[in-house]
Formats: sequence, C-alpha cells, structure tokens
Amino acid sequence: MTAVPIEFREQDPLVPVAYSYWLEEILFQARTEYQQIMVGRSRYFGKMLILDGVVQFTERDEFFYHEMLAHVALHAHPSASRVAIIGGGDGGTLREVLKHNSVRQVSVIELDPGVIEAARRFFPDLAAGFSDRRTTVVQSDGAAFIASLRAQFDVILVDSTDPVGPGTSLFQPAFYASASAALRDDGILVAQTESLHFHRELIARVQGELARVFPLVDLYAVPLATYAGNWWTFSTASKAHNPRLMARAHTVSCRYYSEEVHAHAFLPPGLLARVRNGLLSW
Amino acid sequence: MTAVPIEFREQDPLVPVAYSYWLEEILFQARTEYQQIMVGRSRYFGKMLILDGVVQFTERDEFFYHEMLAHVALHAHPSASRVAIIGGGDGGTLREVLKHNSVRQVSVIELDPGVIEAARRFFPDLAAGFSDRRTTVVQSDGAAFIASLRAQFDVILVDSTDPVGPGTSLFQPAFYASASAALRDDGILVAQTESLHFHRELIARVQGELARVFPLVDLYAVPLATYAGNWWTFSTASKAHNPRLMARAHTVSCRYYSEEVHAHAFLPPGLLARVRNGLLSW
Repeated sequence: MTAVPIEFREQDPLVPVAYSYWLEEILFQARTEYQQIMVGRSRYFGKMLILDGVVQFTERDEFFYHEMLAHVALHAHPSASRVAIIGGGDGGTLREVLKHNSVRQVSVIELDPGVIEAARRFFPDLAAGFSDRRTTVVQSDGAAFIASLRAQFDVILVDSTDPVGPGTSLFQPAFYASASAALRDDGILVAQTESLHFHRELIARVQGELARVFPLVDLYAVPLATYAGNWWTFSTASKAHNPRLMARAHTVSCRYYSEEVHAHAFLPPGLLARVRNGLLSW
Repeated sequence: MTAVPIEFREQDPLVPVAYSYWLEEILFQARTEYQQIMVGRSRYFGKMLILDGVVQFTERDEFFYHEMLAHVALHAHPSASRVAIIGGGDGGTLREVLKHNSVRQVSVIELDPGVIEAARRFFPDLAAGFSDRRTTVVQSDGAAFIASLRAQFDVILVDSTDPVGPGTSLFQPAFYASASAALRDDGILVAQTESLHFHRELIARVQGELARVFPLVDLYAVPLATYAGNWWTFSTASKAHNPRLMARAHTVSCRYYSEEVHAHAFLPPGLLARVRNGLLSW
C-alpha cells in the first residue's frame, strides 16, 4: 500500500506566491499559546518544521540558513564568547554557534517552549545543543528580555519568524536600541530580514533604523529554496568589527559556508545603496 | 462586482515544490503544435506567460532574467555584431540585445510561432524588437538550425524552456559542438541551465560537456522569484574572451544589471569547483 502524499500549501500573508509541498506524513500538530506547530515529512525535503502555516526549515537544506545566520558574525568577531540567539527554538542556529570553541555561553531566548519540545522530539540532530552545558534556554519574549540586559553579549543572532505574530517586536527600532545596549563594546547583531524580492521596503527600513543605532550596518543575502522570495537577507549591525571581513580563520566544519562564501554573500556596495534608497524597485 | 482570483498552480515536473499564483484573469489559452500557451494577469506580477504549465516570466520581474541572459556576454565581448537567440520568442532577450549599438544582426530561432504571436499581442513592450530591421526570425528547432551554420555569430544566447519537451535538444553535447562551430573565433555562448537548488547534477553535467568543446567555461547565477528553485544559473562557454571581465563599458540602460552585478553574479571559484565536482550536495 502506498500512501497518497498530502498537499501542504504554505499560507504566508506576506508574499504573492504560495509554495506547495507534498508530505508523505504529518508527524505532529499542536496549537501552543503562541502558534500552530506542525511537523511533516516530504520525500524530497525530509522532515519539515512548519509554524503558523509557514515552513521554517527542511532537514534537507536547513544548513544554508543556519550556517549563514551563525557563521558570518562568529568569524567577523575575533573571539565571540557570549552569544544570544533570539528565537531559534529548533536548535539549528545553536548547533552552528556551538561549533566555535571560543563560545562559552549561549542564551537561546525562545518564547514558545513547544518549538523546543518539537525539535527535541523530531529533529534531534538540530536540537542536540540544548544538552550542551554552555546552553541556557530563556523562555521569554526576545525583545523584552534583551531590553533588560547591558553589555552582556559579543554576538546577538535574531532567528525570528516573519514580522507577523510573535516575530513583530524584533523588527522594531526599540529592539535595535536594546540590542545595542545588550551588546559589548565590539558586539555584532545579525537579524534575518526577509526577501529582497518581496520585502525590499522592510529591508530598507530596517537598514535605516539600524544605522541610527550602530556605526556599521550591512546586508548579506543567501538563496533559500524553501523561503518564498528566496533571495533571503540578513542585516548586520556592528559596533567595531566590519562583518564583511573575517577576524579569524574558518576552521569549523560547514556544508555551504566558507571564506569565499562569507565575502561573496554581502551585497556589492552599489546594489546595497540601491536597495537602501529604494532605487532597486519593481 | 469583484472577480474571484483564479489559482494557477505551476506544474513543473522537475522540481519538488509547486508555486501557486492568483490570476485576476486568463487572457489567452491555446495549444500549438508544440506546447500549451497561456497568458494570465496577476494583481502583483502583472501579465504572465505560461508555457506547458510553467511560468516563463512575469511583467513585473522579467527584467532580471532577460538583462542577465543578454548583457553578460554582450559586455564580455568587445564588439558583438551578430547575435543568435535560441528560443526567446517572447522578445525579452531580443529587447536587451538590441540596446547595444554594436549589434547589427539578431537571429531569433524560435520553434513555435505561437509564442511570438502571443508576445506581440500581450507583451508589446517585450516584443517590440521583432519590428527592428536588425531582427530576423527563423522558425526552426534551435539545435538543428545552429548545426547548419559555421562561424556566423559573436554571441549565442540560449533562452530555452526547461530540459523537457521542446527544450531537450539544447541540453545535449551535440548542440554544444554545433554552437561552437556556429560561433566566430572569439564567440561566446550563454545558456540558461536551471536551478542550483534543484538541478545541480544537470549543471555539473552541462559544465563538463561545455568544457570538452570550449576553452573557457564558467557559471553565473541570479535570484529569480518566479522560477522554482530560484537560484538560477547561466552557463557561459567562450572561445577567447573571459566572460567574468567586461571588455566594454556599461552604457546601456538597465534596471538590475550593472558592472558590479556582472562581476558578482559569477560563482566564487571554490564554490564553482564544488558544484562541478558534486561536492556541494544536499
């Protein structure tokens, strides 16, 4: 007997194209206080984590997103010791951060413990870092928690959902000011900031707001097949180190990230200026 | 009265994710000898050309694909005069080629006259180049036509559909040998070669086959929101000029292409080697 695949059509209110996946099986569905969590299994993509109807990652290609969120800042900083991950309850970014021996302490600030539970159960490889003694889980709204701290972190990584629902506060100017205060004097913030195809106005706004708080603001992009719009951006905001440059050699084991990928991911300066000034429009 | 949008779900047999668009209206549908042609209109994307159930371009963002297919070779060649476009019956690539004053003669080798008719009727801005006296339309299979010519062209641009149906012959070694023979001594071939996310084996194969015929083989990529997989590649094969380098200044008016985009679009050498050797796999 062969099971008929289940069509799962992503419901992302922020994009004009919907992605459909065929799931062999829905392994888990639950509604927490914060969102709907679903784990499905696709023949091609493997297991997939879906929050509020939007694919967060697939087993097959999650390494693109998680490596590129973590390793740019962790190589641009000469010796990141204390790291905060805001969101990231699936553990994928944590796994990458913990590859660095310089890292002594990682705080994962995840609002929804249901995400961590689902990750431990269905994605044990991603979630392994939750058992590392360097890891502390804080169940809190990321923006509220960061606002309570001063000069705590070398690197803050914003591994958020889209700027709707729980993720909204992480795309606000107040959060960028808090993040700056929570970083040490040479700290670096990296935040996922959506698609260059579909969210250019958001990206331009975030870049402008970061530039009011941080001296060095920049933008890199990664092609991600399972995020609608796909030309996915990460905004960097740094107090001292230039994130385009690597302050330490690349020695951790990666599948996509490399020294040349680090440099190449950043937008060329003229293109970046066009994005910021709304001159790249269509 | 408000019309209810029609869901159009792309049926691309080569990719594990399906894209859905909402069309306000289906403006045209016809089955020619070669394929099914459909023109729809989406509120966000504008008019869209759909062949055999696969989106070929949308009015809103077609410039990414057409500029990047045409202008890399036309700037890498110091004075391209005779250009062949294989496929490209919609006229978008032709429009970009004709921006270059050096170009004296363009042959559009399109198998299906129905595509040109639909383009003239529904996409007059793209199809304007068909009225240019430098343009000749050849109704023929591209591979067969190219095989009949010797040292005719400075640049050949392969603006093909996916390697199924009518597009299949353009992804074969015999075609690359013919294209080399049809190019002048310093000619350049550029061919769209699908998605780095979903067609890495095809890309590696094509790169290897081109390298058996041409001394300089390379690969560049462009993020395209409406092609599934999106990290879209163009393979270059050149007899003398290095396509990474511009042999002439960028003076034609473009929306995305620029000197820095030209250089940046090419894969960094280490990443390219990983693609060719199957070491970038997932």
